[in-house]
Amino acid sequence: MSEKFPGYRGKALTMLKDASAEIGDVIRVMKDGEAYEGVLIPRSEFGDDKHIVIKLKNGYNIGIQVTHETKIEKIGTGAKPTFSKPPLPKQKSNFPRVAVLSTGGTIASRVDYRTGGVRPALTANDLYSVVPELSNIATIEAEILYSIFSENITPRDWTQTAKHVAKHIEDNVAGVVVAHGTDTMGYTAAALSFALQDLPVPVILVGSQRSADRPSSDAATNLIGAVKAAANAPFAEVVIAMHETVSDRSIVFHRGTKVRKCHTSRRDAFKSINMTPLAKLENGEIRMLTESYHKRDAKRELTVKPIFDEKVALAKFYPGMNPRAIDWYVDNGFKGIILEGTGLGHVGSNCFSTLKKAIANNVIVGMTSQCIWGQVNMNVYDTGRDLLEIGVIPLEDMLPETALVKMMWVFGQTEDIEEAKKLLSKNIINEFSDRTVFEES
Amino acid sequence: MSEKFPGYRGKALTMLKDASAEIGDVIRVMKDGEAYEGVLIPRSEFGDDKHIVIKLKNGYNIGIQVTHETKIEKIGTGAKPTFSKPPLPKQKSNFPRVAVLSTGGTIASRVDYRTGGVRPALTANDLYSVVPELSNIATIEAEILYSIFSENITPRDWTQTAKHVAKHIEDNVAGVVVAHGTDTMGYTAAALSFALQDLPVPVILVGSQRSADRPSSDAATNLIGAVKAAANAPFAEVVIAMHETVSDRSIVFHRGTKVRKCHTSRRDAFKSINMTPLAKLENGEIRMLTESYHKRDAKRELTVKPIFDEKVALAKFYPGMNPRAIDWYVDNGFKGIILEGTGLGHVGSNCFSTLKKAIANNVIVGMTSQCIWGQVNMNVYDTGRDLLEIGVIPLEDMLPETALVKMMWVFGQTEDIEEAKKLLSKNIINEFSDRTVFEES
Repeated sequence: MSEKFPGYRGKALTMLKDASAEIGDVIRVMKDGEAYEGVLIPRSEFGDDKHIVIKLKNGYNIGIQVTHETKIEKIGTGAKPTFSKPPLPKQKSNFPRVAVLSTGGTIASRVDYRTGGVRPALTANDLYSVVPELSNIATIEAEILYSIFSENITPRDWTQTAKHVAKHIEDNVAGVVVAHGTDTMGYTAAALSFALQDLPVPVILVGSQRSADRPSSDAATNLIGAVKAAANAPFAEVVIAMHETVSDRSIVFHRGTKVRKCHTSRRDAFKSINMTPLAKLENGEIRMLTESYHKRDAKRELTVKPIFDEKVALAKFYPGMNPRAIDWYVDNGFKGIILEGTGLGHVGSNCFSTLKKAIANNVIVGMTSQCIWGQVNMNVYDTGRDLLEIGVIPLEDMLPETALVKMMWVFGQTEDIEEAKKLLSKNIINEFSDRTVFEES
Repeated sequence: MSEKFPGYRGKALTMLKDASAEIGDVIRVMKDGEAYEGVLIPRSEFGDDKHIVIKLKNGYNIGIQVTHETKIEKIGTGAKPTFSKPPLPKQKSNFPRVAVLSTGGTIASRVDYRTGGVRPALTANDLYSVVPELSNIATIEAEILYSIFSENITPRDWTQTAKHVAKHIEDNVAGVVVAHGTDTMGYTAAALSFALQDLPVPVILVGSQRSADRPSSDAATNLIGAVKAAANAPFAEVVIAMHETVSDRSIVFHRGTKVRKCHTSRRDAFKSINMTPLAKLENGEIRMLTESYHKRDAKRELTVKPIFDEKVALAKFYPGMNPRAIDWYVDNGFKGIILEGTGLGHVGSNCFSTLKKAIANNVIVGMTSQCIWGQVNMNVYDTGRDLLEIGVIPLEDMLPETALVKMMWVFGQTEDIEEAKKLLSKNIINEFSDRTVFEES
């Protein structure tokens, strides 16, 4: 490992030194007859000694395995602007106060142009300097909770995040923004929905699908939309703020229990499932898209129930599934299992005895559908009726991901199995849609 | 159990006898102050002795648990038409021959109006009598393979189905229709795509979301569309034929490796993922929606590779997931694991050591995305690059369900792990989209 070449070791390091290439330089790597050009960037400490990583012109980073036949050539020094803070914008004292908590992810980072790496935006002033528009919307109170990829966020982090959001709400901010990696933002939105009840003000999760160094970045527009909603929106719910379409013209706010990431890379990756988004920001105005929502009321007293229990599993059924994989959860003391069944809420009859055993062992089994849209209805076919008789609990139109989070939350509230079943089936925070909204055509 | 009351025992049977209600009668059940009216229908043998099942006016069946306070009253005898065969339609001898294989599910059934139960349509004549239009399209050669709910179809059934389809193709039919329950029809479509290569004629899977006794049934329109395509479509691929929208006006044909059921109950539940449907039937005409397809050619020689290996698992990652659940597969001799990661193909770093162990034990690990739309790209973030270094294989835009089926098929073709990895990454039957089709906005 070398301080001048963070993350590089062994053969890769030697070749870089031989080429006199430093972090931030533009290099050309010739390998197997192909040439790759880009800015040499640091590697994670986890890396092996065989790859070098460059940031291509299109903004993506690639790792190239070096062999004795690979040639590396320095072809330029990269643009190396330093990150300088603009003068602090004048804050009008009557602007709403908005807390911006960052947990990590693309949205919460600013790019170091020298290295191509991303670093968290640390302070309110960092945020103002990256997105100057914010200073005309709200007085930002920034706090860094974590700086991690969202795939590494755990239920324990949901608890901590909920407590920090609560602290700012109790300090009477107009709203809270939580910057979050998009990968598991849907899960966290569901978690905060259950953990923060009777909200007086909105809690807006926001992410970005393209980092700020790419021309198509959605980071600034999403963040502006989120801060506007936190400051002014008429609703007081946990929502996700993201692009409505691939255009920058509108931001939509998805209810935290009814949203999932439905595309790996598009800016409009997040979709409200079985409902329209709650609200929409367009031409500077926030417009409600439904009349059925929880209204902002600064005097309402927040209820915080931030505990989750990880002894809960999500299992997707498929043809050829070995039911013994479900037994493993029962044998290892899990308290609940959410099934992603097929269609209206089915699994093969080869799973029935395993599910009976689970339920006999006081494991709660809930049924959702891998279709994603629609709702389970276990009264239509024999398989569904059999599963109901076995004791599987139908979870209507709850998303599998929301059902998982809810079950973890339920076991954070009670040890009593009958009480847990009741909580699971009760509509706590709009995780079940109103039955009448379903298209039956 | 009683022959006159199939499936009924104990308390439920006694109460029905007391009310002089027979199967097929209209009854009213009073319970907890609510009245339920419908036709008494038989129960499955699996049933307990506490429920009776009636078919409501809206077409759904419900099970009602009887207690000593429940009251049952016979309020009418149901309409009891018998199923009479119409005269055999005259068959023009120059019509294309189409094989219709039925595996079960709503589409392959006809309703017994007396009982409200569904029974398989057994013969070509049954099909003509239920859907008379078929006799103007093709000469049907019907065969019953199974009569099971599709959630009970296993990889062994894929093998049998592929062999039967091959038998009919070798007998020079113009095309094959496979009637199938919709729950796992996407999995079977992928399986037949890999099992039946170099197809000379089309293989059309078809299902229905509403049984034939409901006014909104899609059974007849879908079956007509499927038979038309089998007889005349210009493509020779495995596809799924279903409603394009909720209207009866158009049927679309989805490529077997790129389709999934995305709604529990809508007639347009099936969606092509990351591509348009292959073709569309509207106003009696089949129109191709892409230029890139495998053309019909009756002289082409079919290749049949019908073997699948069930020692393969699908595991969806989520926050709080216990990696030891993955160890279970490794410890129990599984050969491959398909991960449904987050976003561009990520799992939490708490899973890294488990995945290393799996790969060290010669288990192949493939990565797909739970987003469903888009494609994994494991070169963008550190987590992806780390997983690539560990040896996880990125499966581009392959659907998780298709990837599972493909891995089962791969291990049906070879025991050699390097050969298996190559096959998994090779584009066999358009399971990977052309890279250029991706929207990057």
